Amino acid sequence: MKLPQIGDIRDAAERLSGQAVFTPLLGSSLLDDMLDARILFKAECLQRTGSFKFRGAYNALQANENEIGEAGVVACSSGNHAQGVAEAARVLGMAATIVMPSDAPETKKARTARSGATIVEYDRIAEDREQIANDISAQTGARMVHPYNDFHVIAGQGTCGLEIAGQCESLDLSPDRLLVCTGGGGLLAGVRLAVTDLFSDVAVHTVEPENYDDQARSHASGTRMGNNTGGPSICDAIVTPSPGELSFEMCRGKLAEGLVVSDDEVLTAIAFAFRELKLVVEPGGAVTLAAMLAGKIAVKGQTVVATLSGGNADPAIINRALEA
Amino acid sequence: MKLPQIGDIRDAAERLSGQAVFTPLLGSSLLDDMLDARILFKAECLQRTGSFKFRGAYNALQANENEIGEAGVVACSSGNHAQGVAEAARVLGMAATIVMPSDAPETKKARTARSGATIVEYDRIAEDREQIANDISAQTGARMVHPYNDFHVIAGQGTCGLEIAGQCESLDLSPDRLLVCTGGGGLLAGVRLAVTDLFSDVAVHTVEPENYDDQARSHASGTRMGNNTGGPSICDAIVTPSPGELSFEMCRGKLAEGLVVSDDEVLTAIAFAFRELKLVVEPGGAVTLAAMLAGKIAVKGQTVVATLSGGNADPAIINRALEA
Repeated sequence: MKLPQIGDIRDAAERLSGQAVFTPLLGSSLLDDMLDARILFKAECLQRTGSFKFRGAYNALQANENEIGEAGVVACSSGNHAQGVAEAARVLGMAATIVMPSDAPETKKARTARSGATIVEYDRIAEDREQIANDISAQTGARMVHPYNDFHVIAGQGTCGLEIAGQCESLDLSPDRLLVCTGGGGLLAGVRLAVTDLFSDVAVHTVEPENYDDQARSHASGTRMGNNTGGPSICDAIVTPSPGELSFEMCRGKLAEGLVVSDDEVLTAIAFAFRELKLVVEPGGAVTLAAMLAGKIAVKGQTVVATLSGGNADPAIINRALEA
Repeated sequence: MKLPQIGDIRDAAERLSGQAVFTPLLGSSLLDDMLDARILFKAECLQRTGSFKFRGAYNALQANENEIGEAGVVACSSGNHAQGVAEAARVLGMAATIVMPSDAPETKKARTARSGATIVEYDRIAEDREQIANDISAQTGARMVHPYNDFHVIAGQGTCGLEIAGQCESLDLSPDRLLVCTGGGGLLAGVRLAVTDLFSDVAVHTVEPENYDDQARSHASGTRMGNNTGGPSICDAIVTPSPGELSFEMCRGKLAEGLVVSDDEVLTAIAFAFRELKLVVEPGGAVTLAAMLAGKIAVKGQTVVATLSGGNADPAIINRALEA
């Protein structure tokens, strides 16, 4: 299994230059006072397409540009990878087919469609999205772009970590902890690699929704595991069945305790982000803030960098958070 | 009349270092495609206290630290200057009394109170807020901090322009136009001075709400004028009676055409900011984006910097925008 190295992330950063947003690292003096800590948010909700996913998608498409034919690319995604692939394909002049669950947030479906992608809907309960995407790939010759278990996708997400490392360095801050919103682990693996290249002692924590703590349990046990329970979660962007193989290998034995948050804790975080950070953050992108606000991790006296990984929230969920 | 110079803005930047947020300059590839232009937003909604007002307030309080006694400071404001003064006073260990209209947005009242300021409410229609504040000043010895007609306040707001100039320089961009959300003109005057110090050819436009176009008409006529009409406006932050004396003198004869937007155009901009920029922007902070989306100014092929000057919006107005 060939794993991305720091040089692959640097190559990705070159490809993404001028296309991806160099997102700000934002603090909140109120939150710092509340937690007696220095908290810095990598605001990937401000990234092109509204989440970090554009980074990996664009890197994967451009790195494979010569191998991608007229049939273009195919991807399955609940919405953020969909938008990332669709927009990257538009920019690079490729065709894109996206397999999306019929109950994906309307915001995500509409934004994917406007980049010119063909959307194929499926039933999240009854059908297997990867099978559908693989079938399309086999029939049309379109290249499958996996949302996280892909060398170039992980390297692309890692550019977020390169930026974090550089931003911490220029602020003369050495982070004690790094909290990453984690689904399949593409962002986690790439960001961990890039940040620890400069700050080797940082404790890296996955943050996941309740009932979808496959990363926490897999890294605790040292072997890839599925979810015990499943069930409803508002964090659609990071509800994944198990850690991806590549990202798991990249992080094996290198993570601190995995954190888990409830839907209510996430709603509190979304409302805090709206009121105090003036950011629109979607549920899956707010789990890191939720973990800190709920006291799931001791941060007193520490410098903590946390990803806010996406902002493609339907207004209804923001309202629910503000009314909670 | 002693007017702030570029050196006063540089002094303010030193005072504000480590206290104010160096806010990002954010773009939107979607908006750039829509307008065939390069648009950059100075996201002051991400500033400490949720608007640029912290800059001027902190600068004024610190510059006058030795003259401010136990009675502290007094200010009148519909909310953003209130929060700026209250928070700056808290940081500097000063007492603060804020005169606020009883119908100010709840968000702004609550956020002002939590910084520890004493709030004195008044009736916006029947009472004169400056008179109330002046009376308090006369009775207690508290130092009055005017929201815009103040040397150090204007110099502080100018730090926003210093940042814009530096950010444009490091992006190797020369702005053709600068659009500034304008009430009394403190931000306008400071930002114009700082940006034109580096980019002397930039066309600077005020943007105001319909019925409150005192700046546009004053600068067109060359003399300070009040509003012709008045009436309701959702842009509470920038509804002011006439240009401040200092800011008017600083800008006299140096501005391009003043732009004016309607409430509906502002609501469209708030919704765009929420959906596409993932930013919570208040009505008065969204007028620049509103002007561009409504086609009030030709920007095709140009580089435009626009302030998004505040984000202290009540959820109700965001919902109204999203439902419009």
